[in-house]
Amino acid sequence: MKVPKKHDFPVHEIRRFLEPGPIVLVSSAWRGKTNIMTMGWHTVLEFSPSLVGCLISSGNHSHEMVRRSRECVINVPTVGLAAKVVDIGNCSGAEVDKFERFKLTAVAADKVKAPLIAECHANLECRLVDGRMRDKYDFFIFEVVKAHARATPKYPRTIHYRGDGMFMVAGGALNLRRRFRSGML
Amino acid sequence: MKVPKKHDFPVHEIRRFLEPGPIVLVSSAWRGKTNIMTMGWHTVLEFSPSLVGCLISSGNHSHEMVRRSRECVINVPTVGLAAKVVDIGNCSGAEVDKFERFKLTAVAADKVKAPLIAECHANLECRLVDGRMRDKYDFFIFEVVKAHARATPKYPRTIHYRGDGMFMVAGGALNLRRRFRSGML
Repeated sequence: MKVPKKHDFPVHEIRRFLEPGPIVLVSSAWRGKTNIMTMGWHTVLEFSPSLVGCLISSGNHSHEMVRRSRECVINVPTVGLAAKVVDIGNCSGAEVDKFERFKLTAVAADKVKAPLIAECHANLECRLVDGRMRDKYDFFIFEVVKAHARATPKYPRTIHYRGDGMFMVAGGALNLRRRFRSGML
Repeated sequence: MKVPKKHDFPVHEIRRFLEPGPIVLVSSAWRGKTNIMTMGWHTVLEFSPSLVGCLISSGNHSHEMVRRSRECVINVPTVGLAAKVVDIGNCSGAEVDKFERFKLTAVAADKVKAPLIAECHANLECRLVDGRMRDKYDFFIFEVVKAHARATPKYPRTIHYRGDGMFMVAGGALNLRRRFRSGML
């Protein structure tokens, strides 16, 4: 897969990528090793600072890596990567070097040690800011400290998990801008 | 809009509705009044018990109603309700009776006092189980205690917010079931 060109993206606008609910890939690094996990349970929590809440189960090899490094990158894949997204979620970083196995390109991030996945549409560099919900819920609250995104396509064909092995591919655009009050957009 | 027929749905499988990331309508009741808010920031947190985390900003009239009643219903609308979903999000329950204004049908729930919105594809009756993140993040953790859903369509055309007044309508299905390890579905 071709590695797309990215530009810097304002961190307070990264909800554009996460709010529609795509499956994402979380990359991490700890003590010279990297890993990738497939994640479907996340939500935007705030614009500024740019906060994102993520469920990273303690059953995942990435849990310890993120907990110890206190960093990760949330990468937003599109439909061309769908098979890899599933395969990444069906093996463990305890046994597999996922960048190597899945022929993904690790690019150095600007502000965190975890690598960006170059093939993804957007990459959000994250620092852990609140781990209080981690022990009880495996829920991490990150601040997005730097973001990178492709300029096109404007509406990436993200994939959204429906459960039971079925995904929904992002469909048509619906413009309801004229119904919004000014200040609500 | 026709009011669809629903059946009971297993609460530990409600991730099927929320995990793809749709915009939802949160209905609430407190001291004889009801309200509805449009919500885009939510995530599944656990299968069983069936936990969902939701950001309900303190700027919303619903925040106090949910905080005091410790209950709500998460309703999953489809594209036919898109204009109403936006309009509901652009007025306040402090001024408007939203069920009346938007001609939506309030149906009594089984386990909570908040009403179901009959026109929606699925209705998830929720009880607050953890409010510790509410003061800092406006983040409520609910348990889904009862769920109702239409049997068809199997893949509802939910709407997903992209920001700036633009929505994505749920698109085509992608079956990647054969790539999953047994036990991972």
